[in-house]
Amino acid sequence: MNNTNQCPIGVFDSGVGGLTNVRALMERLPMENIVYFGDTARVPYGTKSRATIETFSMQIVDFLLEHDVKALVIACNTIAATAGQRIRQKAGNMPVLDVISAGAQAALATTRNNKIGIIATNTTVNSNAYARAIHSQNSATLVRTQAAPLLVPLVEEGWLDHEVTRLTVREYLKPLLVDNIDTLVLGCTHFPLLKPLIGQEAPGVALVDSAITTAEATAQALSAAGLLNSENPAPDCRFYVSDIPLRFRTIGERFLGRSMEQIEMVTLG
Amino acid sequence: MNNTNQCPIGVFDSGVGGLTNVRALMERLPMENIVYFGDTARVPYGTKSRATIETFSMQIVDFLLEHDVKALVIACNTIAATAGQRIRQKAGNMPVLDVISAGAQAALATTRNNKIGIIATNTTVNSNAYARAIHSQNSATLVRTQAAPLLVPLVEEGWLDHEVTRLTVREYLKPLLVDNIDTLVLGCTHFPLLKPLIGQEAPGVALVDSAITTAEATAQALSAAGLLNSENPAPDCRFYVSDIPLRFRTIGERFLGRSMEQIEMVTLG
Repeated sequence: MNNTNQCPIGVFDSGVGGLTNVRALMERLPMENIVYFGDTARVPYGTKSRATIETFSMQIVDFLLEHDVKALVIACNTIAATAGQRIRQKAGNMPVLDVISAGAQAALATTRNNKIGIIATNTTVNSNAYARAIHSQNSATLVRTQAAPLLVPLVEEGWLDHEVTRLTVREYLKPLLVDNIDTLVLGCTHFPLLKPLIGQEAPGVALVDSAITTAEATAQALSAAGLLNSENPAPDCRFYVSDIPLRFRTIGERFLGRSMEQIEMVTLG
Repeated sequence: MNNTNQCPIGVFDSGVGGLTNVRALMERLPMENIVYFGDTARVPYGTKSRATIETFSMQIVDFLLEHDVKALVIACNTIAATAGQRIRQKAGNMPVLDVISAGAQAALATTRNNKIGIIATNTTVNSNAYARAIHSQNSATLVRTQAAPLLVPLVEEGWLDHEVTRLTVREYLKPLLVDNIDTLVLGCTHFPLLKPLIGQEAPGVALVDSAITTAEATAQALSAAGLLNSENPAPDCRFYVSDIPLRFRTIGERFLGRSMEQIEMVTLG
């Protein structure tokens, strides 16, 4: 094991949602150091244009590269959908994982009837990135995408088991269920918090939580590149945000499932 | 009438919501030129910290001052609540109107039982700005504020008469109605679009639409300063945004009630 193996994994998102990925990474790769960046001053990205998202994303990647990361995890569907290619160009040989590639892969491995539904933000849906990722491997798969933008603020409001959230989920899922999907990708990092409710509203449909599948893909990529950290008695996890971390801490601990000790505010761009 | 009278009124908001103010200004002051700025690349402000909102707001004010505005209208409750004082310092003698001062004034003129409710974003509620503005004029008034953050994305989704929106409004209004308010301030520029639904859920309660009251206050301030534009055969209205204006145009026309011809994207900061 050389020094690079000790370097952290860089995980980033437009805000707090990517913490669901950090949580899954901590469980799957407990020996790894992690540096997280959440762009809380400019969140959400899901309603912004491709050009703006690319600019913001490259600023974040520059920041993480300065922190000597050994791999990048794009823990935001919107960034993966719009800026994934430019980030991979910039990263060179470094492993770059993202929630869309991992989610598409897992959905293909899960479906039995070859009918996959996707719920995501507007920008992710408009990018058509999930359909492209799935069709590049199986062009016969039916892919139905549905923008579900209201689920983000509903999760942030903490209405995880509220009648309003249930009705909203029901409305969004209706066209997907009509098309008889048997697999549903939770294509936004906020949505895993709604897994119980979505499961009730989509009985018999398998839910793909891209945080878990991305953590698995990260483990495989690090292993293949000989970059796993196998000796780390005190794994270090640092959180950076672009706005004062008060709200990030409150909501973030719900996403992460534990407390966050080191949160620092930095200014990008 | 001198040259200054021909100068535009500068109106600004974190995004699209301030267009409800532009609409009211166009109706109340049809001879005025208007320059609008919506910070669509960084919207929403309502969940960001005071320091970040101040920084962003001062960048917008600089931009509008470069456009030779004769008055400023802070068409965003969150900005008014957090950065209003700094904006007034910067503006010097120029009239500065804002939705909170105007809304508080109108609420005091409307209430009969001296019990006023406010619905707004989290940051506006936390700032306590409405209660301060009302109590500075009548300390005996009961002011009940309620954060209603979900109404913003519901309006942007266009669910203006949807069962989900109705249940959400009902939940938010419950504690205010228990306190027997007779006047409710729509303390966010998105909320006037929900006036019919809110009216049904709060029967007998007078709704204060701060867009209309701010337009009236602007007319009075311009008149008092001798700055009204009385000769303008072709009033000019320009819209500037910080992100590509596709979504701004679509949603904006719903807010403005007419089409927008001149929309330009600029980068601030």
